[in-house]
Amino acid sequence: MKGKFYGIGVGPGDPDLLTIKAKKVLNDVDIILAPETKDGKGSTALNIAKPHLNKNIEIIEKKFPMTYDVEVLNKSYDEISNFINKLVNDGKKVAFLTLGDPMVYSTYIYLFKRLKEKDIDIETIPGITSFCAIASKVGVPLGENEETIAIVPSVYYEKGDKKLEEILNNINNIVFMKASGEIDELIDELEISGHKEGSVFVSRLGLDDEIIERDIEKRKGIKNNYLSTLIAKKNVKSR
Amino acid sequence: MKGKFYGIGVGPGDPDLLTIKAKKVLNDVDIILAPETKDGKGSTALNIAKPHLNKNIEIIEKKFPMTYDVEVLNKSYDEISNFINKLVNDGKKVAFLTLGDPMVYSTYIYLFKRLKEKDIDIETIPGITSFCAIASKVGVPLGENEETIAIVPSVYYEKGDKKLEEILNNINNIVFMKASGEIDELIDELEISGHKEGSVFVSRLGLDDEIIERDIEKRKGIKNNYLSTLIAKKNVKSR
Repeated sequence: MKGKFYGIGVGPGDPDLLTIKAKKVLNDVDIILAPETKDGKGSTALNIAKPHLNKNIEIIEKKFPMTYDVEVLNKSYDEISNFINKLVNDGKKVAFLTLGDPMVYSTYIYLFKRLKEKDIDIETIPGITSFCAIASKVGVPLGENEETIAIVPSVYYEKGDKKLEEILNNINNIVFMKASGEIDELIDELEISGHKEGSVFVSRLGLDDEIIERDIEKRKGIKNNYLSTLIAKKNVKSR
Repeated sequence: MKGKFYGIGVGPGDPDLLTIKAKKVLNDVDIILAPETKDGKGSTALNIAKPHLNKNIEIIEKKFPMTYDVEVLNKSYDEISNFINKLVNDGKKVAFLTLGDPMVYSTYIYLFKRLKEKDIDIETIPGITSFCAIASKVGVPLGENEETIAIVPSVYYEKGDKKLEEILNNINNIVFMKASGEIDELIDELEISGHKEGSVFVSRLGLDDEIIERDIEKRKGIKNNYLSTLIAKKNVKSR
């Protein structure tokens, strides 16, 4: 029997935002690998997929280090991809779960890059990104007509950051991912560039402690949760 | 009975890339509205959803004008949103189908904006975007670590376009939507900015006449199909 590796996007959180394809594949594989970020906390991606698993499948939760230390990260990615490679070579069908979409800022990318160097069959199944789910939920279009969209990770939030300034100058709609911690400086920059009034801040969408704030000035001085996103739209009157 | 309007993203083409939620809602509504772009050609979005419809639901195909004439477009959006409003006020549950994600360059946005001014219940259900499906299929990550992503519609493809130049200067990964017609000038710009070598051109993904071209120079002088996308990555060696 020939094994295969599947990278599966489970979407932003609502189990029903899994695709029909993801559900089919998850019920066809031998082993599901689920990333666990904090000891004992379990896997968020697995909790999203669980309601759709209708047969007994071996589930392995793999701990990923929460660190920016590249050496530690690489060692961990090497180990896990070697582990997957071995399983697939043993003829197993293995699925790796990932939040949102596998090709957008996902841990899966680092495993995928390593595994595609090896001689195994790989299929990646796309998922609903967090920002598309947020845009639908709050009713804020990400792009129309000739507008542009940018997706920007939190590292660019500092005031005076030249790259941030130029992105703000040139892009109509910007999704700021992981708008966690204090975002006061970012909000100031959005005011200067004309993005502030039409923006919306969203934290922990769909969860009990969800926050949707259309007056983003109110988010100043607050240490925001890790699962926060800010959609900034240029020259739009506030809604 | 209270009516409701649903905007439903059916994803990029593969019926199994519909979400479980989209399938549930489609089998719960009274009427499905499907956009038809060319007379007699039927609705692509409806063809994607059809395999998952397991009860008899009234289907109405609505013709949308293929034009850039804003007056003609607005008149059409007004008419269709008034039609939807009336159905919902009559207590009907109505679903409007849209390709990809409803909030990313979709016709749905123009209906949504009109209908949210009226006093009806609206829910938008996100879908897999074409660019996420393409990235998964061709194995090209859209964004990692501190990289940025931009989504750029085809209007910016001209050589010497200042905005294109600045986007190329500042963004690592760029998705060029609707890379149709000749894209020679765009390819020249990508070479200058260092995006060319790591890029991939994809046309009609998943269809019989699918094209995946990693040497994008080869796309010069060719009139590309409307359903074409170019993912450009900065400073990546060609794969």
